[in-house]
Amino acid sequence: MRTIRLGIAGLGTVGCGLMQLLARHGTRIGGVAGARFEISGVSARDRGKARDIELGPDVAWYDSAIDLATAAETDVFVELIGGSEGVAREAVAAALAAGKPVVTANKALLAAHGTELAALAERNGVALAFEAAVAGGIPVIKALREALIGNEVTRVYGILNGTCNYILTRMQEEGLPFAEVLAYAQALGYAEADPTFDVGGFDTAHKLSLLTTLAFGTQVAFDYIHIEGIEGITPADIEAADDLGYRIKLLGVAVKTDSGIEQRVHPAMVAKASAIAQVSGVTNGVAIDGDFIGDLLLVGPGAGGGATASAVAADIVDVARGGTFAPFITPAERLEPYRRAQLRRHQGAYYLRLSVYDRAGAMAAIAKRMAEQNVSLESIVQRRPKPAAGGPTLQPAAEIASGKPANVVLITHMTNEQAIREALAAIEADGQIADRPQVIRIEQL
Amino acid sequence: MRTIRLGIAGLGTVGCGLMQLLARHGTRIGGVAGARFEISGVSARDRGKARDIELGPDVAWYDSAIDLATAAETDVFVELIGGSEGVAREAVAAALAAGKPVVTANKALLAAHGTELAALAERNGVALAFEAAVAGGIPVIKALREALIGNEVTRVYGILNGTCNYILTRMQEEGLPFAEVLAYAQALGYAEADPTFDVGGFDTAHKLSLLTTLAFGTQVAFDYIHIEGIEGITPADIEAADDLGYRIKLLGVAVKTDSGIEQRVHPAMVAKASAIAQVSGVTNGVAIDGDFIGDLLLVGPGAGGGATASAVAADIVDVARGGTFAPFITPAERLEPYRRAQLRRHQGAYYLRLSVYDRAGAMAAIAKRMAEQNVSLESIVQRRPKPAAGGPTLQPAAEIASGKPANVVLITHMTNEQAIREALAAIEADGQIADRPQVIRIEQL
Repeated sequence: MRTIRLGIAGLGTVGCGLMQLLARHGTRIGGVAGARFEISGVSARDRGKARDIELGPDVAWYDSAIDLATAAETDVFVELIGGSEGVAREAVAAALAAGKPVVTANKALLAAHGTELAALAERNGVALAFEAAVAGGIPVIKALREALIGNEVTRVYGILNGTCNYILTRMQEEGLPFAEVLAYAQALGYAEADPTFDVGGFDTAHKLSLLTTLAFGTQVAFDYIHIEGIEGITPADIEAADDLGYRIKLLGVAVKTDSGIEQRVHPAMVAKASAIAQVSGVTNGVAIDGDFIGDLLLVGPGAGGGATASAVAADIVDVARGGTFAPFITPAERLEPYRRAQLRRHQGAYYLRLSVYDRAGAMAAIAKRMAEQNVSLESIVQRRPKPAAGGPTLQPAAEIASGKPANVVLITHMTNEQAIREALAAIEADGQIADRPQVIRIEQL
Repeated sequence: MRTIRLGIAGLGTVGCGLMQLLARHGTRIGGVAGARFEISGVSARDRGKARDIELGPDVAWYDSAIDLATAAETDVFVELIGGSEGVAREAVAAALAAGKPVVTANKALLAAHGTELAALAERNGVALAFEAAVAGGIPVIKALREALIGNEVTRVYGILNGTCNYILTRMQEEGLPFAEVLAYAQALGYAEADPTFDVGGFDTAHKLSLLTTLAFGTQVAFDYIHIEGIEGITPADIEAADDLGYRIKLLGVAVKTDSGIEQRVHPAMVAKASAIAQVSGVTNGVAIDGDFIGDLLLVGPGAGGGATASAVAADIVDVARGGTFAPFITPAERLEPYRRAQLRRHQGAYYLRLSVYDRAGAMAAIAKRMAEQNVSLESIVQRRPKPAAGGPTLQPAAEIASGKPANVVLITHMTNEQAIREALAAIEADGQIADRPQVIRIEQL
């Protein structure tokens, strides 16, 4: 049986998880792959750091990941360093250029340089596998590349960031404000000290850019993603959503439209009775709509050493079995230039929460502005500014016309983003509302 | 580019769906597979039947599926006939013996003869692919064979029959009895004239037997599956489940225990807030628990021409790419004999609905029998025999001790099947209950 020597760069949670996985299941999965897997070398920033793993005497230490990537002893290079530039990028490029297959969990790298690295892999006839880069253990790359290959994908969307989903879930379950849950998540290690990358939607966007390319055969176009984070979601929104039959989730959505491809990351309302609405806590969920299969939803752990190592191991076995696909299915040079759909043409229903001055004629003025843009309303609920325990109710008549701002929640029928923006601009100009309006798109599932 | 000639036997919904898929996407997926797909021959029972497809002049008609399977013009044999014996079995065996890869959607065939057909495929060095045999379009076979290969699977379970899930969903949503919803499902074509195969759990068991073999490396052991259908589920159970935070789903479950492998098909209570509880209507859902990944859940269409054709097409591409795995991962001759865990040793919590004669001391006698078996109770709810609109409530004091049977619902803590059976036998022997008790296992997710 041939031996496949793995060079593993990066010994954080995922790197250590992979070494534990190989220690426990390496022989069995080698049997499946028709090879004996051996860790020939490793590399990490800090050699002295305490780790949960033991490096055997046959495992060479490399101070430089690039040296490991190109070493004669490395048959497959496993990049678990992270980051879009610097050593991760150089090491991956060096391995591919040296004709060595690469397995990586690095979404940032591929979001920034995916098309070019795929081209490099193809020129050198080697695999560039990245199941672990999107949604951790969930096999969504394999689903798009293989299981759904007989479909034209029309939309792919998902909950791709565990930190955001954890925060939204706790806000929903406990009625707490964003900042408080964020602090809690930071204390638990579910959120970074600087949480912007996660809660601002950027991590979700990295992953989405790769799904988009797989689904639609377009060049990786991270820079064209419309990104909104979850920082602006309030308990009032979560509560109103619940009353109206929705959950708020941070979604990454890529969808084919007549005017191009929409790629958007934003908090979205999803029907409470849907399966994706039940994806809670740090769990991820990815849905794919295809012309033959209909809708497929995959739910599982989106991060963590074990789950991500599971995805890396699957890629290693695939690489060993000789699965040299083009990394993005379509060969890199034939990926189409990304044609961005204008978000203002986005078709959908909307949740709007307005802080309306509570005076005669205010609602009529708002309704008029909506009508001018042909936005029809499914429901209008005027809500107490501070709902009592037991949940919000309709505003009692006695409190009406106090002159103070009151929360009004509107759910629109299908319309488009441009109409919503213009109607809201007119309402603001009319002086009917006290704050910036809250706008949350409703995702049709 | 090489040409791969497909021989398709069976032109029902799936066969026609596949031909439509190949007409629409054949060129593209051929590009991915590095081959040109061509339908060289077809076979079906009734040549004259009206179908949604057109057979081109290059497509040869075979009166015999076996002739098609072994024809020199057939490079890959696609078996969409169905049935565990007769022509499907003979044709698949003939194709494999002739060294032709087989793609099949035939769960009944593999449940009955899977181990032996896998051995035949391996002896001849060809693939036997069956993604479409389990859960339609959901890529659960690929998940077990490839995506989760780095895991020891500890449990696999799922909603594997759309007919049952449709019936249970409608019973739940509308409070209707089983027979009424079944008649409706039959009228809609969601259930067969003789529904036993579906509602009795046998179809679920066929699929489960294949998942078990993939997950645990044991010989296909359909005959050892404990099977209960959904015929005995009443609106009273659905309603009580709802009140207690559960949904009732027909699950197929395979789980590794200390005393062997449990394979069971039965209605089960699943927590209402779980993602699998939201899998409704004809949709299927399959969950896999692995030691590194944790829990993965796949949700999608479990039947239908398009979705099943999607799975068949994925297999065809994999076969064209040369994925000659052992069909069940482990080579057939190394599959272990199935070691059946005794169901009476099943560990779990239980829902019990008893029709208790409403007289002094009845509940005390029941509680005593439970205590004798060390079954501790999480809750006891006495319910009206005919709940009023608006849902069931606790029995008002005025109605107590009428002497008539009243529904009493018990939820136990973790216990085992043997204890439950003995406690119930004693309760029946005591003459405290008017009917056979209803016993529904609670599945811990």
